Amino acid sequence: MFAGMRRRDREMDRPETDELLLKGKYGILSMNGENDYAYGVPMSYVYTGKSIYLHCALEGKKLVHLRNDNKVTFCVVAEADPLPNEFSMKYRSAIVFGHVSEVDDDGEKRTALVALVEKYATSEEYVAKGRIYATDALHKTVVLRIDIEHISGKARR
Amino acid sequence: MFAGMRRRDREMDRPETDELLLKGKYGILSMNGENDYAYGVPMSYVYTGKSIYLHCALEGKKLVHLRNDNKVTFCVVAEADPLPNEFSMKYRSAIVFGHVSEVDDDGEKRTALVALVEKYATSEEYVAKGRIYATDALHKTVVLRIDIEHISGKARR
Repeated sequence: MFAGMRRRDREMDRPETDELLLKGKYGILSMNGENDYAYGVPMSYVYTGKSIYLHCALEGKKLVHLRNDNKVTFCVVAEADPLPNEFSMKYRSAIVFGHVSEVDDDGEKRTALVALVEKYATSEEYVAKGRIYATDALHKTVVLRIDIEHISGKARR
Repeated sequence: MFAGMRRRDREMDRPETDELLLKGKYGILSMNGENDYAYGVPMSYVYTGKSIYLHCALEGKKLVHLRNDNKVTFCVVAEADPLPNEFSMKYRSAIVFGHVSEVDDDGEKRTALVALVEKYATSEEYVAKGRIYATDALHKTVVLRIDIEHISGKARR
């Protein structure tokens, strides 16, 4: 199911791919659109090694697509800069393949929201405020979990 | 088919969305995967207002998906920075919806490759070299054109 990379020389090893996924500011969630356009949107996220947590509003296009087909990829790009002399780009990117589901358990939801707050907070003050926010947001927010089945890391240096 | 944006307060006007698409360094092409994961990959591109041109190798996963289903979106993110006090992100992004096809005409292919070179070149020297490259690459490269049906621009400031 997960065919090897065509350009093996551009394959990135797992530790570097993990680091990219841990540090990435956002990723694009790509979803199948049944009889419709594939749909890809930028989302903030937390990577745990086994899964990726996302959050979104209680309604919207994303949920319509995901409830219809939960086989997604999540793409994070670390940098992309022209290599003009080679008519190419210098980049590092990771593509995560998995099934996405909505998290029902309040404990897991809260843990994921706190992890999101901690990842993006720029100070201890915001982390503290964020813990309160996570509890408040619990029933106003959908938390999504991608159970990771495959990760592909690619780099051109 | 193109439902309005849920958060109208975040809708970005067309001139600003056009500017974002003209200047973006790369975008994520999201493709439907028939009975498979949706597939999203980063690609360099040129935006002409009516279409987006991309290029890729003569074979690979992208072409398998696109030949099976050509209804895609192309997502470009201009910036994404945490707004920690609001537990959110500051961002500007555009999503282009359209049908993608492989360009057969050599003239159109060459024009697209030269436009790609010109967009990413960092000096006049590279533009000149790129024109030669575009001719050489003509039969070693697939040029794809997304015919744009809808553009959605969104910003949180």
